[in-house]
Amino acid sequence: MTASPAVPPAADDTGRWLHDLVADLLPPMRSITGEGVRTTLRTVARALGPGVPFTVHEVPSGTPVLDWTVPREWNVTSARLIGPDGRTVVDAADNPLHLLGYSTPLRARMSLDELRPHLFSMPDRPDWVPYRTSYYNENWGFCLTDRQLAALPDGEYEVEIDTTLDDGGSLTYGEIVLPGETDDEFLITTHTCHPAMANDNCSGIAVAALLARTLAATERRRHTFRLLFIPGTIGSITWLAGHRADVGRVRHGLVLTGLGDRSDPTYKRSRRGAATVDRAAAVALTETGRPHRVVDFSPYGYDERQFCSPGFDLPVGRLGRGQHGEYPQYHTSADDLDFVTPESLADSYALLRRIVEICERNRTWRNTAPYGEPQLGRRGLYRAIGATMNRQAVEMALLWVLNLADGTRSLLDIAERADLPFDTVAEAADALAGVDLLADESGGPAGVGVGVGVGAGGGASGG
Amino acid sequence: MTASPAVPPAADDTGRWLHDLVADLLPPMRSITGEGVRTTLRTVARALGPGVPFTVHEVPSGTPVLDWTVPREWNVTSARLIGPDGRTVVDAADNPLHLLGYSTPLRARMSLDELRPHLFSMPDRPDWVPYRTSYYNENWGFCLTDRQLAALPDGEYEVEIDTTLDDGGSLTYGEIVLPGETDDEFLITTHTCHPAMANDNCSGIAVAALLARTLAATERRRHTFRLLFIPGTIGSITWLAGHRADVGRVRHGLVLTGLGDRSDPTYKRSRRGAATVDRAAAVALTETGRPHRVVDFSPYGYDERQFCSPGFDLPVGRLGRGQHGEYPQYHTSADDLDFVTPESLADSYALLRRIVEICERNRTWRNTAPYGEPQLGRRGLYRAIGATMNRQAVEMALLWVLNLADGTRSLLDIAERADLPFDTVAEAADALAGVDLLADESGGPAGVGVGVGVGAGGGASGG
Amino acid sequence: MTASPAVPPAADDTGRWLHDLVADLLPPMRSITGEGVRTTLRTVARALGPGVPFTVHEVPSGTPVLDWTVPREWNVTSARLIGPDGRTVVDAADNPLHLLGYSTPLRARMSLDELRPHLFSMPDRPDWVPYRTSYYNENWGFCLTDRQLAALPDGEYEVEIDTTLDDGGSLTYGEIVLPGETDDEFLITTHTCHPAMANDNCSGIAVAALLARTLAATERRRHTFRLLFIPGTIGSITWLAGHRADVGRVRHGLVLTGLGDRSDPTYKRSRRGAATVDRAAAVALTETGRPHRVVDFSPYGYDERQFCSPGFDLPVGRLGRGQHGEYPQYHTSADDLDFVTPESLADSYALLRRIVEICERNRTWRNTAPYGEPQLGRRGLYRAIGATMNRQAVEMALLWVLNLADGTRSLLDIAERADLPFDTVAEAADALAGVDLLADESGGPAGVGVGVGVGAGGGASGG
Repeated sequence: MTASPAVPPAADDTGRWLHDLVADLLPPMRSITGEGVRTTLRTVARALGPGVPFTVHEVPSGTPVLDWTVPREWNVTSARLIGPDGRTVVDAADNPLHLLGYSTPLRARMSLDELRPHLFSMPDRPDWVPYRTSYYNENWGFCLTDRQLAALPDGEYEVEIDTTLDDGGSLTYGEIVLPGETDDEFLITTHTCHPAMANDNCSGIAVAALLARTLAATERRRHTFRLLFIPGTIGSITWLAGHRADVGRVRHGLVLTGLGDRSDPTYKRSRRGAATVDRAAAVALTETGRPHRVVDFSPYGYDERQFCSPGFDLPVGRLGRGQHGEYPQYHTSADDLDFVTPESLADSYALLRRIVEICERNRTWRNTAPYGEPQLGRRGLYRAIGATMNRQAVEMALLWVLNLADGTRSLLDIAERADLPFDTVAEAADALAGVDLLADESGGPAGVGVGVGVGAGGGASGG
Repeated sequence: MTASPAVPPAADDTGRWLHDLVADLLPPMRSITGEGVRTTLRTVARALGPGVPFTVHEVPSGTPVLDWTVPREWNVTSARLIGPDGRTVVDAADNPLHLLGYSTPLRARMSLDELRPHLFSMPDRPDWVPYRTSYYNENWGFCLTDRQLAALPDGEYEVEIDTTLDDGGSLTYGEIVLPGETDDEFLITTHTCHPAMANDNCSGIAVAALLARTLAATERRRHTFRLLFIPGTIGSITWLAGHRADVGRVRHGLVLTGLGDRSDPTYKRSRRGAATVDRAAAVALTETGRPHRVVDFSPYGYDERQFCSPGFDLPVGRLGRGQHGEYPQYHTSADDLDFVTPESLADSYALLRRIVEICERNRTWRNTAPYGEPQLGRRGLYRAIGATMNRQAVEMALLWVLNLADGTRSLLDIAERADLPFDTVAEAADALAGVDLLADESGGPAGVGVGVGVGAGGGASGG
Repeated sequence: MTASPAVPPAADDTGRWLHDLVADLLPPMRSITGEGVRTTLRTVARALGPGVPFTVHEVPSGTPVLDWTVPREWNVTSARLIGPDGRTVVDAADNPLHLLGYSTPLRARMSLDELRPHLFSMPDRPDWVPYRTSYYNENWGFCLTDRQLAALPDGEYEVEIDTTLDDGGSLTYGEIVLPGETDDEFLITTHTCHPAMANDNCSGIAVAALLARTLAATERRRHTFRLLFIPGTIGSITWLAGHRADVGRVRHGLVLTGLGDRSDPTYKRSRRGAATVDRAAAVALTETGRPHRVVDFSPYGYDERQFCSPGFDLPVGRLGRGQHGEYPQYHTSADDLDFVTPESLADSYALLRRIVEICERNRTWRNTAPYGEPQLGRRGLYRAIGATMNRQAVEMALLWVLNLADGTRSLLDIAERADLPFDTVAEAADALAGVDLLADESGGPAGVGVGVGVGAGGGASGG
């Protein structure tokens, strides 16, 4: 483990800091429950530093959660497959992927033929070890390279799986709540269950940790931010089961996963399709001027499946880069430290920050002087000499905001209709709010009057 | 008349059976009323066989029907035009088209100049006889080839039209009602008034008859099917006038006409534009992978004009091939037995069957466990080993149905959004209904659990 | 001043008449208040002739109007800048543009350096004098060509600005109200404040005057027409302030400006985007078959900014040709009599007339016999011989109107859906209304039955 994550990154060193944290997060044997998760959350806590309130929850095995039940806690002491010649074929100590996730304990001798149904490899990628699990169907097995599998001699094998499945255990997840000026929540989640893979999902855990650290140090937050470090599927189901009454507060949400590979960034829309977070993500990606993808919701993927189930239908999208199943390294031993880059991690983090910023700044205003244009000149918001041709973007933004801020349109709506940058429109709104020409209809507190006076004492022209 | 229509077609002989029936239907002198219609309905009855309940209705002349009145019954004994040399110019016995439809009786001698306003030909198709009528404007006339017309010598002509227009007659139509599990109706209509033309509309009558025969032999019908064999315009108006209170039961409807020519199949949308039948037809046509057309509603055409009048606005579309007015043979003697093919008739019939099947199978379901994803694994509906990459279509369909079945979306909606075949989605819904994860919101009875278990005892993966 | 505007133009002399009126309107020193406006309105009154009720309103300086205050009245006796050699550099008597609009009075001597902030020129157009104003920010200044400015020698200059800003003055505007059969109003406005520029806005004033003259001579008007000749911005704000309770009557509106230049005609949509006037303008422009533009609303431009402010949100669009800021002559001395052409003025006037005509004729009808098609034949509205293929546009229009006239769709809606000319659909509606098959749902009086009988005693065909 490197020492760096304990101190925050310098602005230009974000990518390196994140990559170091990914390296720290990589080693433990992880699954949806067990000590590996707890080790992971301790690494997160260290990276967060002392200023971030981080709670680790334990939910007892057997707890009913929605249509599911929290499973027994799984822990691994050791797991080895020993060949007819007495030599170790695979050992989970070398790579957690070698053990089928949630393997039941077993000490047995058997022939290769008996063993085969329990061995998993990738014929088309003969040098990679696949990642396989069997959470809810009792089973055991080993994952190995296809080259290893092909070379196994006949004979008696020894299976030594020292695992425990404990009815008295629990499911572990981490939670950070950063209160804001309103109870409206921005929910950010990332899954903590995948072992030994850098992109899926040490990258998501690292980026979420850095966001929490940064937001905690921010002077003002309009939204309350909630960050969850949870096992995939059963973790979000467990959290949702415990918060059915509260989820109405979630105004925006993002699932973070696969943020470090070299692919272009990808945003997957929420089920709603045009939620604020969906539109903010589209703006943030478009602003980069670089290739990116925005894809529609589908009920396959990560925890957005649960947040966007029809009963909840939360405005939760997903930010990532290469999508599950698109890249060959997905769910294999090839998703390693070289597969993720500091540059991609830093770029993903910057995008996330920008999406958050847009959601923080977006509001629905109401023009308080909607009959005719208010006289901007006497309020110091209009050019002094009339009848000139140059229309500055900010002056246009003032007029657009006044014209469209009728209590139904957000700044994102106005920026889109006016074809102006979001920040220009937001600055214009702040200026107008500063002279009481706008009232906040979003429910949140009044905006900060930034003061974008365009010339002093200017007068509105009649054309 | 061939004997074949009396026995049902073998599966691979549908086209031949339909073509033989068209040949049987072709000869009689037909109009919107009269013996020709009754003869036609007897041929239909024979083709239906004994298992289909077929009712022939007689509505008295003079009955007020909506804005119209059922006209006098028209019958033809004979109709000839005799030239100055005593030779017959045209005789309706040779071809019913020679007589202007609804010609009043007349025995008269007159010059060619007096006769001319009563002679109809097609200058641009000099060898074809046109089809012309004058139902509601008392008139008489003959239709002949332009070549014949051009060769007519001056002199005295003899008009011998022995027709009757009977105030004490009636309008005749046939009706088949096949009760289903619900009172929701699927209405199928075809016009029986056109004489001596194979495509327009012996093809429609034949295809409707075969559908009735097949549906009557089907074990389960969700909808009640109503098939009408009616004269164009006045027939649908008469039926609608008598069923104003019942038309709310019509959930889907199709007007059948022009189903035998060599053109690509064409579906004309209902006035609503996106009714279930409109979407089912689009799916059925797209599934063929062959050229086809889907055209918007317009208030010109066949009986869809009446069903889609604004007061009724029923979800009734039209299935055909070449459209009225598009092909030169339309409403001429060239619309003969060679103009329709067994292949086109069989193809039209298959399309009709598929549209009916989709409407039968389409439903609006509600996910009974909408909070989070239900655990499919313990219900035997999910693969056993997690974290693999292969997503089978049916597994995706299960997730899509669960995600979108919120009581407002039909299976057609879900298939469209998921970009999956309709049958795949319908199978997934049946499987989910089979384990009580779906409740029917369509008002109909519960679906048949077909059981598409994907692996036994599989467990849902967290990604 | 030419004599011609006092008599109405011959039909083929519209462009010349308008151009002569533009020439009459050009000379006076004009601003948002003052004698120049009154002179302008007297020229308008002469052009209107005796048959048009024309009211000149005076609103006292200091009157609060919405967020504004009616400014002091500004008048100019003379304004000269005299050079070090005693020669006149610029004199407002030569061109009103030489004086900064609303310049405060001043008699002073100063160096060129002191003078410079008060001199306005156009470096990129060295031979043109720009138009500049300072209505609400006390200032003074001269506008001159950049060539003049560059040649100014050092030395003492004499500023002689003899203007008055009178607290006891008023704002002057003209108004014409032509009552119609309903209180629904068509509002037409044009700005009267710009001095010495032919296109902006003598063209608008001239075209509005001719429209008023023509409408006043029209036998029937469905709408009440209100035409306003007002100073830009403060004029519309003043009128709106005095008519807040009445603006709900405004069903259609147009701001007229820049109607004489050689650019293609341009229509700018109202804030609503699809108001009747927006759609009528689009139809009128499309019908010309010539290049044109329809642009979306933006809150920059002329008085549509006020009418379309969110509190009023009136259906007011703008008709013009080249848009403000698009052509280099905009707001300069190059916007002179040669810049506007009789052809463009006549074309703009014809477009305006057509938009007005469509709005006058557009209605929302309800089919009184909506169940099935009514029998058009017995009402003389359908062809006599059935089963023919030719579908005349007017017959199709009859069917479309009957099918879609359900009390929610206007004739513009129906024409668009049917893809038929507006006039064809309007004629069909008149014919149907003439036989009581339509009832007016627009609130206005019944239409004139124009009678487009298609053949006598025709009968509807069944296809």
